[in-house]
Parts: sequence; C-alpha cells; structure tokens
Amino acid sequence: MADHPSRDELRDVRGQMWKHLTQGIMPFWTARAVDTRYGGYLTCFDADGDLIEEDTDKYIVTQTRLIWAFSLFHTIDPQGTPHLGYARQGVDFFLRFFWDPEQGGWYWKVARDGSLVDAGKVVYGQSFAIYALATYTQATGDPRGLDYAARTFDLLQRYSADVARGGYYENLEPDWQLSPGGYCAGDRKSLDIHMHLLEAFTVLAQVSGKEVHRRRLEEVIQVILDHMIDWENGCGGNQYDLAFNPLPAIAIRRTWNADREGAAVEAPLDTTSYGHNVELAWLLRRADEVLGNPPDAHRDLVTRLVDHALRYGMDWDRGGVYRDGPHAGPALVRDKEFWQNAEVLVGFLDAFELTGDTRYWEAFRLTWDFVRRFMINHDLGEWMTLVDENGSPLVPGIGNPWKVCYHSGRAVYEAVARLDRILAKLEPSHK
Amino acid sequence: MADHPSRDELRDVRGQMWKHLTQGIMPFWTARAVDTRYGGYLTCFDADGDLIEEDTDKYIVTQTRLIWAFSLFHTIDPQGTPHLGYARQGVDFFLRFFWDPEQGGWYWKVARDGSLVDAGKVVYGQSFAIYALATYTQATGDPRGLDYAARTFDLLQRYSADVARGGYYENLEPDWQLSPGGYCAGDRKSLDIHMHLLEAFTVLAQVSGKEVHRRRLEEVIQVILDHMIDWENGCGGNQYDLAFNPLPAIAIRRTWNADREGAAVEAPLDTTSYGHNVELAWLLRRADEVLGNPPDAHRDLVTRLVDHALRYGMDWDRGGVYRDGPHAGPALVRDKEFWQNAEVLVGFLDAFELTGDTRYWEAFRLTWDFVRRFMINHDLGEWMTLVDENGSPLVPGIGNPWKVCYHSGRAVYEAVARLDRILAKLEPSHK
Repeated sequence: MADHPSRDELRDVRGQMWKHLTQGIMPFWTARAVDTRYGGYLTCFDADGDLIEEDTDKYIVTQTRLIWAFSLFHTIDPQGTPHLGYARQGVDFFLRFFWDPEQGGWYWKVARDGSLVDAGKVVYGQSFAIYALATYTQATGDPRGLDYAARTFDLLQRYSADVARGGYYENLEPDWQLSPGGYCAGDRKSLDIHMHLLEAFTVLAQVSGKEVHRRRLEEVIQVILDHMIDWENGCGGNQYDLAFNPLPAIAIRRTWNADREGAAVEAPLDTTSYGHNVELAWLLRRADEVLGNPPDAHRDLVTRLVDHALRYGMDWDRGGVYRDGPHAGPALVRDKEFWQNAEVLVGFLDAFELTGDTRYWEAFRLTWDFVRRFMINHDLGEWMTLVDENGSPLVPGIGNPWKVCYHSGRAVYEAVARLDRILAKLEPSHK
Repeated sequence: MADHPSRDELRDVRGQMWKHLTQGIMPFWTARAVDTRYGGYLTCFDADGDLIEEDTDKYIVTQTRLIWAFSLFHTIDPQGTPHLGYARQGVDFFLRFFWDPEQGGWYWKVARDGSLVDAGKVVYGQSFAIYALATYTQATGDPRGLDYAARTFDLLQRYSADVARGGYYENLEPDWQLSPGGYCAGDRKSLDIHMHLLEAFTVLAQVSGKEVHRRRLEEVIQVILDHMIDWENGCGGNQYDLAFNPLPAIAIRRTWNADREGAAVEAPLDTTSYGHNVELAWLLRRADEVLGNPPDAHRDLVTRLVDHALRYGMDWDRGGVYRDGPHAGPALVRDKEFWQNAEVLVGFLDAFELTGDTRYWEAFRLTWDFVRRFMINHDLGEWMTLVDENGSPLVPGIGNPWKVCYHSGRAVYEAVARLDRILAKLEPSHK
C-alpha cells in the first residue's frame, strides 16, 4: 500500500492544479468565449485554440456551462478580469434567446445571433440551466438566476416528472409533450440525466433553502439508488425503460453519443462509464453535505463505485481511466476522454478524503500526472478532447458544442478544495 | 338469472330518479345552501332540513362540492332557478377566502365569514377544487375555474408528487412541507386520495384538452393498478406507506374517519370499502372515455371490483350495500351509509351497461329500491346520512361538513344518463 502523501506532495499537486486553473483554463476562456458581436458564448475552438467559424450555433449545454464557469471565475477572482460581466452577459443572452416565452423552459439550440434552431425541451439541457443559474445567483447575488432556476424546476415537476413510476421523462417536444420512443427516447430513462438532475437540485436546494427542492433532491437520489445501480458489481447502469428495466443502450437524438467521436462498442448491451460512476460518487457526497447528512451517509455505494473504476477502468501503468467497459471485466474501449478523467480526479480524491485509503490517492496522483502530461495542451491552457491509452491525441480540439471547461475547470477547482482540507487536517508529522 | 329489464321498467326507474333529482335534491339545496350573508355555502342541515347554526364553518370539501353541484344544476336547468349565479358566487367566495395568496393552493377550512381557520394543504381538498372548478368552467364558460384548476394541478406536481416512488404525498402543511407521520399521515398514501385525483384529473383533462393533464391521469391510474388493488380478491386496498406497502388503516387528521359516526371496525387491518371499489370501477370507465380508450379497456378490473361488492357487500334480501368488510369474506360493518349506496348505484348500472349481465341490473334495482324506501327523506328531497341494515335511521341528518349532494345528486344524474343510453340501444322487442 502506498504511503500517505506528504505535506510537500500535497502542496506540490495543489500548486500545479491552482496554476493550471488560474493561469491556463481561466485565461483561455476569458480571452475567447464571450461573443462580443451577439452576446452569449462561443464554444468551438480547434487544436490551436482558434474559433471554428463554421460552428457557432449556441447549445444550451455549453451556454449554461460557461455561465456556470464565469460565475465560478468571479468567485475565485472577484477583483480581476471582468468575470462578473462575462457571466451576466451570458445570462442576458440566455434569458433573451433561450427562454420559451410561450411554453416555458429552455430551447435546445439557437444560431449565433440568437435565432431559434431547435426548440426541443431536453431535460439534460434544463438540468444544466438550473445548475448554472443557481450557481450564478450564488456567485453574484443577481436574483434572476435563482428565479429562473426555480421556474425551470417547477416546469420539470409539471411536465417531466413520471408520477406513476418515479423519476423523470427525459426527452420532450417543444410544447413539452413526451417525445416518441426509440431514437427520440421519450420512452427511456437514464443514469446520465438523473445524475445531472441530482447535481442541479443540489445547488438549487443549497441556494434557495426550500424544502421542496431538498425533497426532490432526496427523491432523485432514491431513484438512482433503487433503480440505476448494479450493486453487485458496484457500478452504474445506463439506459432503462420507463419502469426502470435495463435496456441495451442506443444513441439518442441530441444527447447520448449523438455526436460521439472515436471508438464505440458494438451493441453495448452491458457497458458502464467509469467517469459517470465516479462522478456520481462525489456528487452524492456533495448532495449529502447540502442535505445535512453525515459525510459517510453513502459510503458503501461511494466506495463500490470508486473501487469498480480502480479495478476495471484505471490504467495503473500510465494513469488515467479508460472510456467504457462491461459491469464485470476489463475495459472494452481504452481511449481516454477528457471528461471521465476530469471527474475521476475529483472522485478519487474525494474517496481518499472520506476513507484515508491511499489506493485512492495513488489513482488520483497517477491520473493527474497522465492528464498533465498528455491531455492538457499547455500552450493553450486547456484540455484536448480525446487521446489514446498512451496519450497520443485522437481528437485534439479544445472546445465543441459539449466541451468547454465545466469538467476540466471544475475538476481542478474541486480537487484544490479537497487538497486544502486534507492539508488542514494533516498531523504535524506529515512534512 | 334475472331477465333483462323491460323498456317500461327502465323508463319507470329513470322517471323516479329524474324526479328525485329535479324535484328533490335540486330544490333542497337551491333553497338552502347559498349563504346570503357572507357568500359561499352553508352545508350543515339537520334531520328536519334546518340549518345547524353552531356548525357554519366552511370546509373546502363541501364548498367545492356545491360549486360542482350548482354547475351541474345549471347544465340540467340553464333557464330555471339561478343556478349559474349560485355557482358563481360560490366560486367568488372560494377564490377570495380559500386561495392562499402566499403559498398557493387552497386552505382546508375557513369560518362562515371567510376568516381563516385551517390553512393545511390537504390533497383530498385540492383534488375537489380541481374537480369542481374544471366542472364549473365546463358548465358556465367562466375561464376562472379552469385557470385555478390548472394552477392547482401545477402546485400538486410541484409539491405533492412523489418523484421517487410515484403517486402523491397526501398531507402537507400550510407552506406545502410534508406533514409529520402517524396521525398527520405525511408518511402515508391511500386509494381514497388517489381515486379522487383520478376523478379530478379526468375532468381537468377533458376541459383543458392538455396532454400533460391526460398524461398525469394515465399515471395516477397506473399507480392505482400497480399498487392499490388486491387483484386476487378483486377489491381495493386502503392505506400504504410511501413505497406502497399496505399498512393497517388508521384515522387520519382532517380526512379518513376523522369525523366518522356509527360503528367502526376494531383494528381494521384488512378492510375494504365496497362503495370505494365500485366508485373506482365507474370512474375508471369515465377516465377511459376521456382518454379515448375502448369502453372495455379495464373490463377485467371493473368486473372484479363490482363482483366483489356483489359477493360480500350486497344485501340481496333488503337491497343496498354494507359499509366495510375484509378482502375475502362477509361484511363486518353492516350499516348502510349514503355515499357507498350512491356510488354503487352508478357502478352497478355502469357494469350492466358494459357487460349486459343482469346480475348487475338486479343489484342496481334492489339498491335503488332500498335507497328510495329507507334512505331518502322524501319530505325534504335528500338522503339521510346513515341507516342500519334494515333501513332504520342511525344518523338522519341531511348535510354536514362532508355531505351535501355530490354523491346523491351525482348518482341519480349519472344513473339517468346510463338508463337513457340503455333505453336508446334497446331492441324494439323489449317493450
């Protein structure tokens, strides 16, 4: 078993991460993301960090993730570059062009100038609106964020909740009718979307303090625990029918693997995502914190999820986690993607903080070294999209309709917070 | 097996019922119910039909049931006595004094002058607000009814839906937090409340035409079918924990048996209500009609429920149904109460219309004869509250905080509609 990291090692990693966040990620987006012509954000940047001019449509997912990011940057550096204004102008654009004044809720996609492209009501997107807008109010005090986050929550309860079986319908039409089945997936539920609702309701409950927001957070946790966990193997599932019977995963319009690049698994009947599982582990712990539960309220599940990733998803030679694999057995797709590696950084360190088990530290440390060496484009300060298991770039682009800095920036920010807590608790003997 | 009723017999019963409705029930309430001093309705009338002066508090259940009743009366007799105005003034009072302007939703009880007595948010009451207000708009065209019915629906989705397990929390505090467990029953679900949500969403979906109202109606049916039916014995359950595990029934603050008069069953672990079961049968058929389902979509359950009442609840000697009994075996409480006997009139006749089985006609006919002979106070034109199995009055009062003419008036109105359809389809050979 590895030794407990020394104070010096902890400080060293903490310093690397903080520098990467404040001198890499933050300047990259602050210099490029604001669309000075139309407002809102530009999100697609190639391997040289240059704007991809032919790809300037604005998607709910990355518009909200940059509202979230500039809100975070303002929290980190309230006196520095004008993060507050950058967040606010993103909210202005979002409220003006994404809000559906007739049906309520947020569109899926608009053109660069704000004209409507796709009015679909996709719960994945609505959840990020809640997450970003509640965080924006938390960071800035502007009440519009929480107001619209709560309205979005109410619309989800009205239109998206499944009051027969529990959980949420995930794919709805512009007028909030259920989408058809199959590729449009009105007949499916998934761990992905329910985990992001958990994430969104956590911040909403924290910022609003309302009992009903806490109650729905508890309920969505219950849905995940009751229906979406393979407890025997210690991993999450993927897609389900409306009654939570597992289904072979399919590509889904607008969301799941709809734009996937790189290798896929043929007929992925039984795959699980290490990144999702470990993300769920630390999001559960974050939810417990907001709910006032003890830190170890979900210790059994948290350690099962992280242990599964260590057993099957972790590359113990080179660091980093693979992409997909079966519930029991080695990974099938061994490429390494930005978001899974970002989420396991937080989750591995979180499990180390919870348990003191140095295997988790070791996995965190190896993954951070892999990310630093192969995934981050240090000239630009941001992460590439996809590398192979040895670290050779497969998709070196920096930004796309899904990827901005929600995973990368959050991972280092959350890791630094944990490193600071671990350092603060360290016995004097740990030099 | 009894013969199919002749045209003459059908016409005879139809005539008795129509006369009872239009010359008994309607004049009784039209002459007494409107509170000319404060607005809204007076509901408590003794065995002589006189107002009980010491009991003039206004409860959501009977205020809404009289809004519903005067809306129906207006439909039946739009040119006659001023039913429209009587309904509208009830709505005026209800909107002014029962609507919670801060938390949304409807109070449980106000004093005669409208001053607040109990601000509890009880789903049983909210469901009758939806039922009455949607019916009011249907009958009168006044859009306020549907507007507030839809708002109430939205509040139930926000605060009362259980998005972990499905179904609805039933008992909430004035600020819509969940009530404590036990007597306050924040930890229970029941067939009673879910059946009345089914009833309310049926009219709401019909009047609004909205997909989400239809969807929630389908969901609440699913909850009842999945969790609240004893399929083997063919009857409904009573109370459940939040995960739908059956619980021994207890008295519940404000609603279940809280004001029960007459005999009770000791420790009613396993009782079912014949009246509820048969009410559910015909409400299901009504919901199918609104949803565009075939008339026999729930034929299996409908006939099981009605057959159970025929087997155990029906008094084949004297007519009428008993009050409570076990799932399998003869009735335990053999008093005959107004509302169960009203609901089985509709349900027995409805099952006859569905199946043509003359056993159902026989049960309907015997029950109507019992009601006409022993339960209706013909001097007043309305039903007594409770008689014993032989028809001797036990609680001869006409109106109370729960009883107005929602059961009695609806039963004869719905029965007449079915008799008219049966008559219209009759072969010429049936004289």
